Amino acid sequence: MISRSLATSLPEHVGERVRVAGWVHRARRLKSVTFAVLRDRSGLAQVVLPGSAEVPPEETVVEATGLVVANPQAPGGAELVEPVITPLGEPARQPVFDLYRPGVPASLPTVLDNAPIALRHPKLRARFEIAAAGVAGFRSTVDGLGFVEAHTPKIVGSATESGANVFGIDYFGRPAYLAQSPQFFKQALVGVFERVYEVGPVFRAEPHDTTRHLAQYTSLDAELGFISDHRDVMSVLRTTIAGMVGSAADRAGAALDLLAVELPVVPEEIPAVHFAEAQELIARHTGEDPRGEPDLAPAHERWLSEWASREHGSDFLFVTGYPMAKRPFYTHPEPGNPRYSNSFDLLFRGLELVTGGQRLHRHSDYLAALAERGEDPQSYVDYLGVFAGGMPPHGGFAIGLERWTARLLGAANIRETTLFPRDLNRLSP
Amino acid sequence: MISRSLATSLPEHVGERVRVAGWVHRARRLKSVTFAVLRDRSGLAQVVLPGSAEVPPEETVVEATGLVVANPQAPGGAELVEPVITPLGEPARQPVFDLYRPGVPASLPTVLDNAPIALRHPKLRARFEIAAAGVAGFRSTVDGLGFVEAHTPKIVGSATESGANVFGIDYFGRPAYLAQSPQFFKQALVGVFERVYEVGPVFRAEPHDTTRHLAQYTSLDAELGFISDHRDVMSVLRTTIAGMVGSAADRAGAALDLLAVELPVVPEEIPAVHFAEAQELIARHTGEDPRGEPDLAPAHERWLSEWASREHGSDFLFVTGYPMAKRPFYTHPEPGNPRYSNSFDLLFRGLELVTGGQRLHRHSDYLAALAERGEDPQSYVDYLGVFAGGMPPHGGFAIGLERWTARLLGAANIRETTLFPRDLNRLSP
Repeated sequence: MISRSLATSLPEHVGERVRVAGWVHRARRLKSVTFAVLRDRSGLAQVVLPGSAEVPPEETVVEATGLVVANPQAPGGAELVEPVITPLGEPARQPVFDLYRPGVPASLPTVLDNAPIALRHPKLRARFEIAAAGVAGFRSTVDGLGFVEAHTPKIVGSATESGANVFGIDYFGRPAYLAQSPQFFKQALVGVFERVYEVGPVFRAEPHDTTRHLAQYTSLDAELGFISDHRDVMSVLRTTIAGMVGSAADRAGAALDLLAVELPVVPEEIPAVHFAEAQELIARHTGEDPRGEPDLAPAHERWLSEWASREHGSDFLFVTGYPMAKRPFYTHPEPGNPRYSNSFDLLFRGLELVTGGQRLHRHSDYLAALAERGEDPQSYVDYLGVFAGGMPPHGGFAIGLERWTARLLGAANIRETTLFPRDLNRLSP
Repeated sequence: MISRSLATSLPEHVGERVRVAGWVHRARRLKSVTFAVLRDRSGLAQVVLPGSAEVPPEETVVEATGLVVANPQAPGGAELVEPVITPLGEPARQPVFDLYRPGVPASLPTVLDNAPIALRHPKLRARFEIAAAGVAGFRSTVDGLGFVEAHTPKIVGSATESGANVFGIDYFGRPAYLAQSPQFFKQALVGVFERVYEVGPVFRAEPHDTTRHLAQYTSLDAELGFISDHRDVMSVLRTTIAGMVGSAADRAGAALDLLAVELPVVPEEIPAVHFAEAQELIARHTGEDPRGEPDLAPAHERWLSEWASREHGSDFLFVTGYPMAKRPFYTHPEPGNPRYSNSFDLLFRGLELVTGGQRLHRHSDYLAALAERGEDPQSYVDYLGVFAGGMPPHGGFAIGLERWTARLLGAANIRETTLFPRDLNRLSP
């Protein structure tokens, strides 16, 4: 049997007999000719049959052996004629919407309810090829910077990082929880590897049904030691984001074209404003006065992003120095101005994409920070042991993969860039 | 301030003043001289002080600025003299065992109980550098073969793949479960991407406390469509394993040297025996008669591995055709011999490392398989929809990362190659 050719390779085989295999993407009968368009992982191949020919129902898996001829009107400029079509499975059930239409003729709930089939639509599949390319760029960048990849527990004994929004598990009869982040583990591993990263699921029992939150998402976490302050973390993050954009261009060019995505330019230095300065800007220019608020409202994040685009020509903006009141207890305060912190958010096209910053690294600072928040150090005994055992100044960041892809594609709902979302209402498919 | 040099770069800087930073790995006072050995992510640097000098306690994080001089007796052939040592944190608490000893002077439980500090020991850290290199090799190999990386839900609505050994979760007041594998999702995604992989945690509520089982481990999953049968899957697996070995050599050479690991040679074609033939061999050569048993005992796996090494000079052996009775319902039977299956295990140095095979791909075959096992197809409605929607012949495999690393290192207990193991008794650190 001749070996299989991929659909997009047909132009290289004009004049040869080849075998292609894939899903019947579309069957189209004209008066004197029938077209069967096959879809495989590479793209589409047009197969030409006599007008009277039967073509299996769309989405049936078939192989077709035939002669490749040039035809400028066919996808890629070549098509298969005189084919023998052999089903590789049973006739497929009709999909809930037509997968061959150029646009996606279905609402988001319909897509999500029928994800295993719906995601076959080339424009839906393309989103996840872009996501995969982004993750590959994340890894190759941090690998190149000497980071080591780790795999940490997703089941933890105490819901410590933030008591709210955790999922409880029955762990051999004992209570346990799904990890909300690898934060404590990645800090501990700075003591081992200096530079560490993890790509993995994190879990939030988000009681709100919003377009921005999921019960499980993929977190691209990095943490590094021997920093001067949070600006060293921002510099690594800038390099990483540039690597993710570059990887999307290199590895997912066809998907980007199909979705007409315009990749952002990552400036050599991403503009940065201090939180206090950001509030001043908003007060001066918008008629609203957020000064005194401990956090930025989504509308203000959007305004700041537009400001960065206007003033600095940048799709990205760092906001630094968030008030300690709104940051976790392990956050390093701003030297000389301890109301603020050595932390940052990275805004990308109007939305917070990354949170990061410098962490405390002295054992005594942890004890003081917990005491100030009225927390019992005994609940953090393993974590505190890391700092008692000697830790360098360190910091890190976490990028939400689904959010990254959503902003890149201009998707309004994070569920559009999640294969099988989990949320307050959704536990299948 | 001069920029930081890594410990192993000292020989490149002889005659220059440099700054190094790291943990005080060892302080050693002789009569007229004191050595402070610093440890950073690259290795060790020797810092020479006057005999009367104070060195902060071991594991304290410091930086040292001084002059680099050649000294054949120092690690790497160069050392730092006339240093100024500045602590970057508080004096460290004494570790539970000496991290500077060449061997690990502690039992496994002591290591696991104190993992955040214990893993700093260069020989313990090295294990995970080798693991990370293996994962990188897995990914780069399957990336090169056209696989797309996916991230699937770890929270599922039904404990379907195998009712036993699942962790229950309270999911917004509804019962849910931690996924035991991405099996159903990766099969669905063959319909989308044709070739898909995932590196992620899987969860097994293993009620047994063995050296081979964990409650969470890292599964390297791959699945591909348009195969002829399981032998196409075995061929991709062989390429992948070779990629993992090659990546360990390329990316973790120092760690392999430190642990004196001898990497296996992956034969161009890994020897394969059918399950029935394997039982015959055991019966003929060992005095035991396993014929009629539906699975291989661990002792028989070891014997077969030794046989493969003796007869074929291979550390690897495929056993194919496992009886259907012991394989999941989605397993494809052996054509013409439906008591057996188109599945395989890959044995590596005496132990099962990978399970894989061809899956059913026809909707009607799934209905028949579930009926035969007395299961309600309604419990599998989303999964069955994938096959009704048109699926090619497909198959895949799953490699347990911790098991891979353990076999490579000759570790007796899988916990030795897990950063922070979770098991029947262990939920921290």
